[in-house]
Parts: sequence; C-alpha cells; structure tokens
Amino acid sequence: MRVLAAKFELVWTVTEPREIPPSLATDAAPNAALLTEIATARPFLVDVCRAGDGLPGLGPTDILHAGPPLAGWHEACGPLQGAVIGTLILKGIAKDIAAAAALCESGAVTLRSAQDFAALGTFGNVIVRDTMLLVVENRHNGSRAYAALNEGRGRALRYGSNAPETLARLTWLEGRFADVLGTAVRAVGGVDLFAILEQALHMGDEGHSRQKAASSLLLAALAPAVVETSFDSALVSKVLQFLATNDFFFLPLAMAAAKSAMAGAALGGSTLVTAIAFNGVRCGIRVSGCGDRWFTCPVPRITGRYFEPYSEVDASPVIGDSEIVETIGLGAFAVASAPALARYAGGTVNDTIALTTLMYEITAGEHPRFTIPALGFRGAPFGIDVRKVVASKILPAFNTGIAHHMPGLGQIGAGYGRVPLSCFTQAAEELETEK
Amino acid sequence: MRVLAAKFELVWTVTEPREIPPSLATDAAPNAALLTEIATARPFLVDVCRAGDGLPGLGPTDILHAGPPLAGWHEACGPLQGAVIGTLILKGIAKDIAAAAALCESGAVTLRSAQDFAALGTFGNVIVRDTMLLVVENRHNGSRAYAALNEGRGRALRYGSNAPETLARLTWLEGRFADVLGTAVRAVGGVDLFAILEQALHMGDEGHSRQKAASSLLLAALAPAVVETSFDSALVSKVLQFLATNDFFFLPLAMAAAKSAMAGAALGGSTLVTAIAFNGVRCGIRVSGCGDRWFTCPVPRITGRYFEPYSEVDASPVIGDSEIVETIGLGAFAVASAPALARYAGGTVNDTIALTTLMYEITAGEHPRFTIPALGFRGAPFGIDVRKVVASKILPAFNTGIAHHMPGLGQIGAGYGRVPLSCFTQAAEELETEK
Repeated sequence: MRVLAAKFELVWTVTEPREIPPSLATDAAPNAALLTEIATARPFLVDVCRAGDGLPGLGPTDILHAGPPLAGWHEACGPLQGAVIGTLILKGIAKDIAAAAALCESGAVTLRSAQDFAALGTFGNVIVRDTMLLVVENRHNGSRAYAALNEGRGRALRYGSNAPETLARLTWLEGRFADVLGTAVRAVGGVDLFAILEQALHMGDEGHSRQKAASSLLLAALAPAVVETSFDSALVSKVLQFLATNDFFFLPLAMAAAKSAMAGAALGGSTLVTAIAFNGVRCGIRVSGCGDRWFTCPVPRITGRYFEPYSEVDASPVIGDSEIVETIGLGAFAVASAPALARYAGGTVNDTIALTTLMYEITAGEHPRFTIPALGFRGAPFGIDVRKVVASKILPAFNTGIAHHMPGLGQIGAGYGRVPLSCFTQAAEELETEK
Repeated sequence: MRVLAAKFELVWTVTEPREIPPSLATDAAPNAALLTEIATARPFLVDVCRAGDGLPGLGPTDILHAGPPLAGWHEACGPLQGAVIGTLILKGIAKDIAAAAALCESGAVTLRSAQDFAALGTFGNVIVRDTMLLVVENRHNGSRAYAALNEGRGRALRYGSNAPETLARLTWLEGRFADVLGTAVRAVGGVDLFAILEQALHMGDEGHSRQKAASSLLLAALAPAVVETSFDSALVSKVLQFLATNDFFFLPLAMAAAKSAMAGAALGGSTLVTAIAFNGVRCGIRVSGCGDRWFTCPVPRITGRYFEPYSEVDASPVIGDSEIVETIGLGAFAVASAPALARYAGGTVNDTIALTTLMYEITAGEHPRFTIPALGFRGAPFGIDVRKVVASKILPAFNTGIAHHMPGLGQIGAGYGRVPLSCFTQAAEELETEK
C-alpha cells in the first residue's frame, strides 16, 4: 500500500480495518444477482438513430450532458460550454456563437443529465434531438443505451471546439457516415460488443482510454457489409478511412455497452455501483439499491501525464460519462491489460498490475468474460461494492483523458483519478436508511 | 534455469561457464554493423506478383520448399508431399493425384530451397512459377523478399491438403483476390510492415504464431484502397471478408519482412544467425559470416499443446521458413508480448516472460523498434550470436504450429521448440576455419 500511495497520489492508504461494518453486512443475494446480470449482458450495436427518435421524452429545448445534473448554464465548464454552443450552431438552432451563447444565458435551453435518458456523453459532448446516436441493445434483457459517434482526434466538439472544421466534420459524420454505418450495422444484424471487448483485453486495450484493438476489430466486423451497401465507392472508402484512422471509435460503444449491462441493475438492496460520472463540477455515483439517485462531491484531481507544453493548471475539471465502463471491470479496473497505457499515463507496467490488483479489494466479482492476460487470465474485478469501499477506504480508480479548460483546445493529457470517498459514505448512509 | 528447464523440456541447462571462447571472441564491429542493418530495415509490402516474374532463375520444373535443401522427393514429409501434389494439380501441371505423384517420383520436377530464391515457405507450402507471391521490399537497401499468400485456417495446402475445396480457395486467392490486393497495395504506394509489427507487439502479438493485431492493422491500412479499386463491390466485399476473418494473413509478410531485413547480412565475419528453417527432416541455420551455407541437424521435438484428439504421435516433423522472424527478435524471442499465446501453447504468462528474458543471453542487441510492454518496453532480444549460444548452451527458442503428419489433416497443435546445439557448434567451427 505504501508503494502504491507513493505512485498514485490519490490512493487512500488503509488505516482502518477492512471488515465490513455490521450495519452494512446485508444479504449477499442481491449483489450476486446483479453480478450475474452484468456478466451475462449481451450488448450489440444494432442501429444508428436520431436522438429524437430513440430517446422518449427528449424535448426540443433539452440539451443532454455527461454526469449528474447541473444547476444551470452558469455551472457549465469550458469544454461543455463550447460543445453546447457548437451543437446549437450545427443543428441550426442558433446562427452563430453570440446567438448561441445568448440562448444559453437566457435559459431558453435546458441542460439535462444524459443518463436519465439511457444516453451517455463523452467529455463535454452533448445530445439534442437531431444528434445521431449509436444504438446498443442488451440482448439479454432487451434494454437499450445510446451514445454519440466518436469524432476522432484533433479539434473535436467533445473538447468544446466549435470551429468551422469541427462542425463540418460532424455534419458529414452525422449525415453520410451515419447513413452508411447504420445500413451496414442493420445488414449484419448487429455487432456483438462484448465479444469484441473480450478479444481487445487480450490485445492491449483496457476498454476505456485505449480502444485501438476494439476499433480495429469493429472495422473488420463491418467492412464487408459497408462495401455491400449501395452507397458509392468514394463514400464507402471515406467511411472505411475514417474508421481505420480513428482508434477511439469504439469508446462510446463500450460506454453504451456498459450502460445497457447496468440497465437491469435496479435490484432492491444491492450495494453495487451502477455508474460513475462527472459533469465538470461534481463527481457522482449511482448505486443499484438507491435507484437513480446520484451521490456527488466536487470533482477529484487527475494524476497524469500532460502533453507538451501543458500542465495541470491548463486542465478542465473532469467531465464525461465514460467511467461507467469501470463499473463493469474495464478501464482502470482492467488497466493491467493495457501496458502501453502505462507509458501514456505516466506510470510503469508494474503500476498497471498493482492498480488492477488493488481493485479486487473493493469489487464483488471477477468477470467471467473480461480476462486479464498479465494476471494469468484472471477475470477483471467488477461490481464495485459501496460497503467494501467504505470499509477499506480504497477508492475506485478511473482512467480519463484530460481536456484543456478553454473550449476547443482539445485533449492535453491523460491519466488516472480516484472517485472520492464522500460519494460512497453518502451512499452507505442512504442504504442504511432504506434497511 | 532449473525452473525453466522443468517447464521447457528442451532448455539446455547451463553447466559450463558462459564466457565466449577466446577463439571466437572476434572483433565486435561486424556484428554491430549487422545489428544496425537489421534494425534500420524498412520492409514494405509493395506488390503481388507471379513467382516466375519475381524470382530470377526459377525454372519451369522447380518447386521451392521451406528449409534447407532436401535430397529429393523421398525425403519430403507428409504435408510437403501433399502440398507439392496439390500445387501440380492446381497449376495444371498434373491432371490428378496419381499423375502428380508419378511426376514427383520420376524426378521430372526438382525440389529446391526457397530461401535460395529470396522466397519463403510457410509449413509445407511450395512455390512454382505460377504461384502468386507477396512482394516485400526493404526500402533501406532495396532488397526484396517473397512469400505466398496465407490461405487462412481449415484445410490448407500448407498442411498438405489437396482437396478440391482447398484448390478452389487457392484458385480464387491467387486469381481475383491477388488482383484486388495487388491493385490496392500499388495504389497506397506500399504498406510499412515494421510500423505494423511495432504496434502489434503492443497488442498481444509476438509476430509469429499470433498475427491477430497485425492482420487487423493491415486490413485497416488497405480497406479504403481496396474499395477504391475498380473491381465490383461483391468481389471487394469478399476480399475484405477474407482479410477480416484470416488472423494469420500477416504471417508471410512478417517472414518476408525478416528475410528482407537480413538481406544485407552478408557482412564478413559476423557471427549472427540470419535464418532458422526446417524442411521436415533437418533443422538448419544460416550465419552471416558463412554466407549461404546451412548448418543442419535432425529436426528437434516440439513441446506444445495438442488440439483434441491429437497427440505428439500424430505430429509431422517441423517444416517451414517462418522461424526467420525469430532472428529479428519476433516469435519466441518476443513471446512476452503475447500472453494469450501462453495459454494457446500450454504454458503460463510467467513462462512467456522467462523465455523472452532468457533469449537476451544469446543475442547481441535489443531491438530499437520492437519493444515489449511486459518487460517495461525493453527492446526485443535480436541478433542471435553463434558464439553466445555455443558458450552458454542456451538454445534459441522458436514458436511453431504443429501439422498432422498425414497430408491435409491440418494444424493439430502449437508450441515451442529449441534449435539444437549442433547447428551452432558446426557454425562456430566454420567461423574458426575462416579466421
């Protein structure tokens, strides 16, 4: 523990006994049922659709963002502000930046939490009725989850860019690209996302900050069907080129797969975490036994590596829903599968093994399908148990990119964070109250 | 060493001091020059061509096989016999199996070593003038190397199958498929093979027995150009489907890349190994300072895992040129990069790390581009030094599939072998003589 604490500054050292307090030592049955539910999920990419068609109740003035709900526009961080403004221009709701900003400040649009609509936001990315979404269906129970298309690197809306080239790329992505992708996905009858993630964990991905293998495998799964669409070959080639050069394309699919796996998680009394998310101001978790309630606290610091010439003072506070993948055993929980990421995030290969190993202390199960080569193919730790976090004070880790705090400057680094203890003590109190 | 010896039965335990005998402690300069030559190679897939057009001197009755030269047809092992007969039928040289076998027995065709033609054979695969070959050019020095297309799994010519479906698949592969692939490769101006291998080593491949990541990355590199060829979309889709489902497609490219990297290796006095190969009877090595001479001994046993219901008694003796990849630091030398292969080959993840680590004892350098995540991104051991093998008696390891000894039954397992000491003592004597 001391060694780890030196390396990961945000590790809470263990100073108290690890026994679960008697008051929280509830019946294990609900947790076991939820573990089975998560492990037997069968999320497939089944379609691409307009948000207004896929998300019931999404109003014309609603703007869905990542993380727990915000109190309003005044709370929006730089990348989120940039993304909202870009989206309003992109979708023809506002004619320019000034008009879009005025709309936001007037309260004419409403920021709402995407997760209340079975949708997810990556970084500052937002969803309005005309946003095109990837549709993931958990064929184990029929539940669906949605996420926007990944735009690739460079100046991206999700980092708050609303530059003309950003919006032009999105116009193509949400137009011609989405047409081709949707046609191909429907033609193959869906793509098995956990089958891809299983393989990707043996190919250096951890399912969150490294998506290179998964994105390649997705391309292989779809390329023949993309060619068999009736679209012209120049467009088909451009679509394949985009997929072939975007090694983060799979990220929103992993997120939606996790969300759909957690959709059966409202099993009374379970103490397992069903979501971890950030809105740029607050970090929040949801817990199975407490339904849709968020337990929040201020966003934590990120320990990471910054790209030249940036440093921590340039960083935006954490925002994004992608940490839901940590709840199913991916990301930081499986980082021992991604040694290449150790360098990317400033640590060593042994650190990745130590971090994943530590996460077994606070989880209820070992994933039967997501296995970690470097640990002799042990199943990834999954099912974060609020009781174990509170008892051990070992904080769940998460991987994340780091965006610049100014809208549109993009990713400036990557690293690890830890979900603060406060979220778990609040949840534990609530679970107590409900008993 | 004792632990390793228990695990890898073919490890030679160290019983003598590891000092290099004074008589072999030659000037290090030629080895250093050769290491640089190998490390700075830039092999690109540049074309697909007919063997008769690419290989000068290849006669109409020549049949090129893997490994050192054979004394004649009577020495050909089962898979090689099957592949020769299949090729003679496929290319219209013989009308059926009986006629093909009669041709071989009559001495009307001549078995020759592919490596004498800058070409390579995978398993029992053979090359005649009408065989279509992948063309790899080392852009560092312009040298070229050639290998046949990988047919995928199932009943394959390289395992000696000459069944109608095997020949039908090859007819398509060497016809329409080769047309499309060649067109796409020329259109992109070549594909950088070491750039792919570098990434693949961070994605669970070791560059020999696991080619899943490299094959996916090649697909991504070529898919847009494949679409932009003027071939009809049904054919293009079938080509992409073949590439997307053949996770060994990259193997002959890795082999030809290694061969082209070794092409500048005829530097006088170097004690480094430039080829390891098997012809089903004999194992052979070539050494830089001894030019094209093979140092041979009987093929070694393979320690591996057999697929149900097979066992060692069903195995063909080792055949194939693919072990040239071990000479540039791939395969068994980089197996710590491929933990998934540990299970496949019957060992543990720690065994893969131990085996790669052991190989540093007998190599002259650490590859500047091929780095191994599990070893903290240390460069793969490369440049097998005859002097170090003789002094330490640590035998170079190699990965290999295992074919059934009966023609056409295919792959029945996979494992590790060790190149026998005798090859190295012979080479050491020859190097002595030349001094």
